[in-house]
Amino acid sequence: MPGFIYSDIVERWDVFEAAVHGRTEGNPFVDYDITGVFTHKNETKQVEGFYDGEGLYKIRFMPSFRGSYTFEISGSFSSESYKGSFECVAPTGNNHGPVRVANTYHFSYEDGSPYYSIGTTCYAWTHQPAEQQEKTLETLKGSAFNKIRFCVFPKHYDYNLSEPITYPYQGVPCDSSKLTSENFMEFNGNAPGNEWDFSRFNPRHFQLFEQRIKELMLLGIQADLIIMHPYDRWGFSQMDAKWDDLYWKYVIARFSAFRNVWWSLANEYDVMTKKDLSDWERYAAIICEKDVYNRLRSIHNCRPFYDYSRPWITHCSIQRQDVYKTAECVDEWRERYKKPVVLDEIAYEGNIEHGWGNISGRELVRRFWEATCRGGYAGHGETYLAEDKYLWWSHGGVLHGESPERLKFLQSILEETPCGGLQPIQASWDEVAATGGSGYYLYYYGFNRPSFRKYYFDDTNEYRVELIDTWDMKIDELGTYKGKFRIDMPGKEYMAVRIRKVDSR
Amino acid sequence: MPGFIYSDIVERWDVFEAAVHGRTEGNPFVDYDITGVFTHKNETKQVEGFYDGEGLYKIRFMPSFRGSYTFEISGSFSSESYKGSFECVAPTGNNHGPVRVANTYHFSYEDGSPYYSIGTTCYAWTHQPAEQQEKTLETLKGSAFNKIRFCVFPKHYDYNLSEPITYPYQGVPCDSSKLTSENFMEFNGNAPGNEWDFSRFNPRHFQLFEQRIKELMLLGIQADLIIMHPYDRWGFSQMDAKWDDLYWKYVIARFSAFRNVWWSLANEYDVMTKKDLSDWERYAAIICEKDVYNRLRSIHNCRPFYDYSRPWITHCSIQRQDVYKTAECVDEWRERYKKPVVLDEIAYEGNIEHGWGNISGRELVRRFWEATCRGGYAGHGETYLAEDKYLWWSHGGVLHGESPERLKFLQSILEETPCGGLQPIQASWDEVAATGGSGYYLYYYGFNRPSFRKYYFDDTNEYRVELIDTWDMKIDELGTYKGKFRIDMPGKEYMAVRIRKVDSR
Repeated sequence: MPGFIYSDIVERWDVFEAAVHGRTEGNPFVDYDITGVFTHKNETKQVEGFYDGEGLYKIRFMPSFRGSYTFEISGSFSSESYKGSFECVAPTGNNHGPVRVANTYHFSYEDGSPYYSIGTTCYAWTHQPAEQQEKTLETLKGSAFNKIRFCVFPKHYDYNLSEPITYPYQGVPCDSSKLTSENFMEFNGNAPGNEWDFSRFNPRHFQLFEQRIKELMLLGIQADLIIMHPYDRWGFSQMDAKWDDLYWKYVIARFSAFRNVWWSLANEYDVMTKKDLSDWERYAAIICEKDVYNRLRSIHNCRPFYDYSRPWITHCSIQRQDVYKTAECVDEWRERYKKPVVLDEIAYEGNIEHGWGNISGRELVRRFWEATCRGGYAGHGETYLAEDKYLWWSHGGVLHGESPERLKFLQSILEETPCGGLQPIQASWDEVAATGGSGYYLYYYGFNRPSFRKYYFDDTNEYRVELIDTWDMKIDELGTYKGKFRIDMPGKEYMAVRIRKVDSR
Repeated sequence: MPGFIYSDIVERWDVFEAAVHGRTEGNPFVDYDITGVFTHKNETKQVEGFYDGEGLYKIRFMPSFRGSYTFEISGSFSSESYKGSFECVAPTGNNHGPVRVANTYHFSYEDGSPYYSIGTTCYAWTHQPAEQQEKTLETLKGSAFNKIRFCVFPKHYDYNLSEPITYPYQGVPCDSSKLTSENFMEFNGNAPGNEWDFSRFNPRHFQLFEQRIKELMLLGIQADLIIMHPYDRWGFSQMDAKWDDLYWKYVIARFSAFRNVWWSLANEYDVMTKKDLSDWERYAAIICEKDVYNRLRSIHNCRPFYDYSRPWITHCSIQRQDVYKTAECVDEWRERYKKPVVLDEIAYEGNIEHGWGNISGRELVRRFWEATCRGGYAGHGETYLAEDKYLWWSHGGVLHGESPERLKFLQSILEETPCGGLQPIQASWDEVAATGGSGYYLYYYGFNRPSFRKYYFDDTNEYRVELIDTWDMKIDELGTYKGKFRIDMPGKEYMAVRIRKVDSR
């Protein structure tokens, strides 16, 4: 059938896509619908497609089971309906499926492999020139980061004043010729000169964007998509409910089939003064209805937390509320929300003028270890003033900081936990301690500098003890101990002790 | 008159002392009383004396006014009464009088000079061999410390297990021959073998102790006397109310005339399980009645604060309740109690196994600056494991740390504040700021590392700006600025900015 293209072999958890020609009269973005129904012996799923411009409509679908799928595509976009089938085959490479909440406070891939989140943030990396985007991917490739937060809409904020490479809508952007870093706040929101047709998306913007989602997927990196945000001069943060809802449906139709997608409804939802709680709850209802894969869903605060106990929220996505104490509250928040606690912003390593972007690598890594040993996950960001004016936190590019290497080290420690994520345990007031089950204990001392510590588990088992220098990234094997024992330490900051019961079988 | 000795010239705020022979039958510590009445045209004060052993009774008095004093000493200690007079002359050297609360949240000497408290702690320094005590004084002499906390009773605690050079009572101490650092907790409280006569003090213990109070006074150092404490194996923390009260009266009669005495009712009052609130309030009532000089009074917590709003408490004497945040709460506590906030324990620079004694010099100095710029005062302590087993925090001796030098630097900054102590001011969320009045501003950035900051006061005045590196102890003069201005900074931790309005007169 001419103009009907799809692949007949798809990896499990990969994206099946069908492209089909359809009506172009009027406004295809709003005038017509397209629906696909996918059937396997284990599941039947109905998904919505989207108009991708130039007469092409697309349907995307992620198959969750191996074996034969049949499908039927229909809707007002065409007088015909389209049928087909494909074979879903075993996943390859690093395809472990989507990430799900596991063990209440943690995550795992759908194939059961653990997922230890070490996130980073590059809000506007997909809006930079292609060359810069390639650099970002190159950097991510060699890093610990297995999650990245970034925005669908372009970003207007200090250090982020240039035009994006594409706009999400058809139309004309505001006049930014008089925009400077001194007056950028005057352009906030919907600046003069914006002329957008919110009923007509710019498919190119989304095509480029989802190309990056796909590349991240191949790198095994979760795309924590920020669907709305307040740092705006184009008015995208101030659309009417009608256009917001159209946008949400379009975004879900385009992105939800990518297994690495997480929904972050907003960055700093509370700064988006034109939206209220009923808006956020309405968007959430749209996602819950339209995202048939149940991707992870959260919403990120500036100051007050969103109510993370809302049933649609799968995990907390927290920004520091206190200058001094955030990672240190992870165990408390776990108890309160009974969900994974992800600290997506706890200040960035850097040297810009703002307190949220100028802590040291040491302090950032300390916060990661605190969060980790309290059974949560932290997020990285970098804001060094650079000659090229590219700051990782927004533009991506290359990293300059001291923390990324240490986060790789932390990742390697996490990969050696026996199962299901770390649980905080009752410990002395001057240490943070976690168990990974199976006689596994991890103690962290942060800014304390003990010259020794004493431990006691039981009188019968032997325990293998390692001293971990979380900053110098060294692990010293100290041998095995039994009963009450004392571990000598170097009286340095940022030390951890890992203790594992010797298997006597 | 034989056996009646006193000086007829006394400096203002110095100690007048009269020694007189009296009855020795029975138990002179409890069987007789001795009272002195001192009269000057501006004041009449009645003080109690004490028995100092070997038939000698003493009366001490601090004159608050220049000019002629007459006095009369009488009581059951003797069938006679003794009269005399002395001339109170101008103070010399660093004698500025006693320290008082000033300007609600601060302190000043009675002559009006400001007193910026930079305290340290050597709990048991007066119980060490004389040579060690001399070392402590030598160290203090060259330091920033103008207050030191120490205990009247000897101390029993980890790293502090040796016998004191003297005991406060006549009798026999418990058998400590089997005491080790492993089993010391078993000796806690009233260990077997203690045989004390709580009705008979050992004057030698108090004579040696007050010799040190006097030497501190000459050095201009406040003696923050911890009258009771829980770290005990001799039973001194578990005496009956009768003996407690006798002890309090004896201590007040002996020490209250020294202008540098502060009363700290207890260290970690809440750990003294044999005492309850009514005991502490009773001791407070005794001090308020017997200490005619109204010396500064407080009480120090382990966990819960004592109710610092009690009217007899002149200032808060706080121990850190939270591992991460204490100095950061000073402004809140000022508001709550409307009294000076002194953080007497916020963890010590050191490397012992306990979290309260192993933070870095950098972290301790950071806490001092936080407390200072929030309008309060912090306290130092040092707990480095040393070859000679002397840890400053308890034994005094010499200092090994990096913080003391930086605290001298902080002291020099404080001495340049225009008047009456620093008041916290509303500032950005990512800085701590204080004013010293008269167009004086001090901004502190702690662990943040801004490369620049912007300031604005008004459009008309000129402001002199200095960049202060609180760790490297450097002050860079940056010139004068007007209107909105930007200050470039090195993107390092622990920087402060001092801004002073240029006097246009």
